Amino acid sequence: MSLEQKALQLHEQMHGKIEVVSRKKVTTREDLSLLYTPGVAEPCRVIAKDEEASFRLTRRSNLVAVVTDGTAVLGLGDIGPAAGMPVMEGKCVLFKEFGDVDAFPLCIDSKDVDTIVQTIALISKSFGGINLEDISAPRCFEIEKRLKEICDIPVFHDDQHGTAIVVAAAMLNAMKVTKKEMGNMKIVINGAGAAGIAIGKLLIGMGFGNVILCDIHGIICEGDANLNAGQEEISHISNLEKQKGTLADALQDADAFVGVSRPNMVTKEMVATMKNGIVFAMANPLPEILPEDAKAGGAAVVGTGRSDYPNQINNVLVFPGVFKGALSVRAKEITESMKQRAAYAIASIIPENELHAENIIPSALDKTVADAVAKAVADVAREEGIARV
Amino acid sequence: MSLEQKALQLHEQMHGKIEVVSRKKVTTREDLSLLYTPGVAEPCRVIAKDEEASFRLTRRSNLVAVVTDGTAVLGLGDIGPAAGMPVMEGKCVLFKEFGDVDAFPLCIDSKDVDTIVQTIALISKSFGGINLEDISAPRCFEIEKRLKEICDIPVFHDDQHGTAIVVAAAMLNAMKVTKKEMGNMKIVINGAGAAGIAIGKLLIGMGFGNVILCDIHGIICEGDANLNAGQEEISHISNLEKQKGTLADALQDADAFVGVSRPNMVTKEMVATMKNGIVFAMANPLPEILPEDAKAGGAAVVGTGRSDYPNQINNVLVFPGVFKGALSVRAKEITESMKQRAAYAIASIIPENELHAENIIPSALDKTVADAVAKAVADVAREEGIARV
Repeated sequence: MSLEQKALQLHEQMHGKIEVVSRKKVTTREDLSLLYTPGVAEPCRVIAKDEEASFRLTRRSNLVAVVTDGTAVLGLGDIGPAAGMPVMEGKCVLFKEFGDVDAFPLCIDSKDVDTIVQTIALISKSFGGINLEDISAPRCFEIEKRLKEICDIPVFHDDQHGTAIVVAAAMLNAMKVTKKEMGNMKIVINGAGAAGIAIGKLLIGMGFGNVILCDIHGIICEGDANLNAGQEEISHISNLEKQKGTLADALQDADAFVGVSRPNMVTKEMVATMKNGIVFAMANPLPEILPEDAKAGGAAVVGTGRSDYPNQINNVLVFPGVFKGALSVRAKEITESMKQRAAYAIASIIPENELHAENIIPSALDKTVADAVAKAVADVAREEGIARV
Repeated sequence: MSLEQKALQLHEQMHGKIEVVSRKKVTTREDLSLLYTPGVAEPCRVIAKDEEASFRLTRRSNLVAVVTDGTAVLGLGDIGPAAGMPVMEGKCVLFKEFGDVDAFPLCIDSKDVDTIVQTIALISKSFGGINLEDISAPRCFEIEKRLKEICDIPVFHDDQHGTAIVVAAAMLNAMKVTKKEMGNMKIVINGAGAAGIAIGKLLIGMGFGNVILCDIHGIICEGDANLNAGQEEISHISNLEKQKGTLADALQDADAFVGVSRPNMVTKEMVATMKNGIVFAMANPLPEILPEDAKAGGAAVVGTGRSDYPNQINNVLVFPGVFKGALSVRAKEITESMKQRAAYAIASIIPENELHAENIIPSALDKTVADAVAKAVADVAREEGIARV
């Protein structure tokens, strides 16, 4: 039976991958009158006087909404709100299993930015955080930006920032393994959508040297026509030497390649022009170049999104811990510093003496990662003075 | 320690009365690839082709949204979306504990009918049913009506219909105990808001004779000025003899009183003017008349909303079963016939030979009720040809 058939059969059998359960049995009249009327009126009164109390007296303090409009689901594209649900439920499973964070999936039946922003804002007081998911670019930038302005709780588009953090973590360790210097590295990102731009921003913010983004038209350069808002913004801080040309041109003498694009974009000949190259080919399930080909081209370190090769770069290492940490201190937002320190926290899970080309990133199944990430995020919140508990 | 203090302490300790859990542990790479990427793409593809499959492949088939705008929470009034949450979580606990139905609470931060309708409609494809809760009248009528038109899943305002069904169930058995005849009964409902009107409509639809509604201005009569839309609608089918006057006037020779109003509205002298009266005084926590006073006035059967008196008329007997039944057959809506049969199902839980003045309604803790109600609702759906599975 193929993986597809097996997955379908499992979904048919499970009737949902998550479940909403009661945290207390109701067997006596007292249970009823404490959990429901008339006793429940008292916590309501307390929250009515001080809304902050909702974080103590309801599930809000450990609850994240996983929200999509179904427009960019996996590689499937715009499949609509109902069809996006299996992915959102899966995400909620990972939140709970890896971070002990409750997450609830909501698929919004609209593609209009204003409508999506309003809908999420209107239900945001039922949650402690908002994880945006699988919303197509460039709409995802605007939606996240506006929600961050409106909402008093963390808003985090995982396809952007979760991916950026895990790539940064892998890059930190790959850099150590290859003995490169952060400030001198030339990093080429292929794919200038939500993930690519976020990866670029985070790497630049962390001090990686020259970051160059490419899209299907080739290298993105400041002043190019037809850049969307996100591309335009990053064009001012990336590709500092204003290089023009193709992906192949960009890869010449590059230290690292990060692919968040499509299968087979990179050849071993292209890898051979890199300098002791780090190759993160994360298109899924078929990477931009297969690891064996990247190695044949002389790559020093290779990572993919796949579990059947070493160095799986998977954002399950990120989002459970990021939200766990932010919720634990009631941080209002996920800041750039939190993202950077989360990346360092993930990288440092692997002891220096176990670091090698085939072991730059913890296993996606390593349940210690979330706590390390959560601690890093909470520490930064305290340092930045935005922890509220 | 008072009940209020105890309830507050319990809420502080619990950090939420519900929890979103995973239905499968994630410990192996295969778990990850079946529950999440890449395997999860297959159920997504199936739903993209046939949206109905979302009821098989996600939690939707057993999932109800409990939605409020926080405008009519218990007796507390308009306390806002965050403060309404403890009640909504409590409701979700009861859904799960009594009906094994997953329910998730959402508090919408708006009082605008259009906005509330749009918000709920936009997330409705994530759920199998919508339970509206604690939304003030007359807005609740409009919201429910429009959502029923838009949504392809059951929409049920529990404060209206849940209350109506449980009152009808109690009335059926009280009628038997007092040997009254349904078609000849004069029933006076005090409180012409959401609950009062819904109770009136259901009792009239079931064949109870003359139903009269009263509000603070006295008896409601066809043609009265200042009736809201719901009151106007029921004025054409209630108070058939066009009686005018006060609540006391209405109660003269009445067979039954149903109070969904305020404490101390009814005196034992008023009860004494009834005919072998059935008195359901459901204002909470202080009823329209205390049971001991109603009995002193000559009431034959007395029920309240309270657990410390016999005959607790509580809609926890209703909503878990109604949704369980509707979800089980994928009914698109909760019809009038379903409500009627649900009332008969609840009434018939008590065997004829155990029926007496202090035992007309099952215990709120009786977990067999939900299945009986669910069966009745599913049976009607099949009979009416609206069962989809």
